[in-house]
Amino acid sequence: MTRWKPDAQGRLMKAAIELFDEQGYEATTVAEIAERAGLTKRTFFRHFSDKREVLFSGSEELQRLWLEGVAAAPADATPLAVVVAGLDPVTEMFAQRHAFARIRAAIIEANPELQERELIKLQTLSDALAAALVARGVSANAAILAAQAGVTVFHVAFAHWVAQDDPRAFRRLIDASLGELRSVTAA
Amino acid sequence: MTRWKPDAQGRLMKAAIELFDEQGYEATTVAEIAERAGLTKRTFFRHFSDKREVLFSGSEELQRLWLEGVAAAPADATPLAVVVAGLDPVTEMFAQRHAFARIRAAIIEANPELQERELIKLQTLSDALAAALVARGVSANAAILAAQAGVTVFHVAFAHWVAQDDPRAFRRLIDASLGELRSVTAA
Repeated sequence: MTRWKPDAQGRLMKAAIELFDEQGYEATTVAEIAERAGLTKRTFFRHFSDKREVLFSGSEELQRLWLEGVAAAPADATPLAVVVAGLDPVTEMFAQRHAFARIRAAIIEANPELQERELIKLQTLSDALAAALVARGVSANAAILAAQAGVTVFHVAFAHWVAQDDPRAFRRLIDASLGELRSVTAA
Repeated sequence: MTRWKPDAQGRLMKAAIELFDEQGYEATTVAEIAERAGLTKRTFFRHFSDKREVLFSGSEELQRLWLEGVAAAPADATPLAVVVAGLDPVTEMFAQRHAFARIRAAIIEANPELQERELIKLQTLSDALAAALVARGVSANAAILAAQAGVTVFHVAFAHWVAQDDPRAFRRLIDASLGELRSVTAA
């Protein structure tokens, strides 16, 4: 009986981030990642199109969870409150990924091309959130403004979350960032 | 006596946008742009690194004018009010460029690679505005949130401005967009 090997994708991500941390992102090859995970290059390419995608594969899950959270938000909440309430399932996901997120953030910070990709992913996320708000009956303008504001709140909170040590601090940092946005936008 | 030819850059921009409008952005060559402007390719490349830069050369002027506006804003204004007040000099520039902006917006809308470049330029603008707010004594967090919110207000107003016919409507659309942002972010 062959041993069942659970979650090849998870093992590849763990191996990749260890290697990126030990020897740098640029210096790490797909062959090394596969070897560290005890898998083949072929298996790697079944899960990721390239090395860069290891860093960005979480974006789809983030978007999926955030949209689930938006769908579950109270019907009478204001548009930005809906977007921020939508972060509840994301908070759970993030609590499990703090170590990965910190190493990932340092890699992206050091690489302008990865920063551009991150920016594009955040815009895709904002567009998806705006479409979800429109589907809830919010006007197009209000939806775009609330989605962008929500992504900004997220982005600022995320930067603080990776800069500190508590994996479970994300929700608190989101609330702080939201309060600060409300304070700077007040008339 | 040779005839003095003013503003080669302005003529190249005008020629380029005419050709983009007539025959499409992709189909237009630098040689055609230079010929239409009555200039050489060599002169084109003294002003622009490539065809794409004709579309983005206004970004630096936008940023310069916006930062001038921020520097001139009242000392006691709230951070977002400073960013929005900073758009006064931009409003003047835009009133002269409505026809160019409309054609440019349609080209960018149709081209994902140009959309990515526009997104990166907007992020550069946001970073510069945040730095200007920090220089005015605003905290780093509040500066990032206010700058991003200001760029979002700008972006939404800009989309409406190019979708309608009045070149001088920009300030009114900014005020409407700001009011709407305040409404969606309210607790």
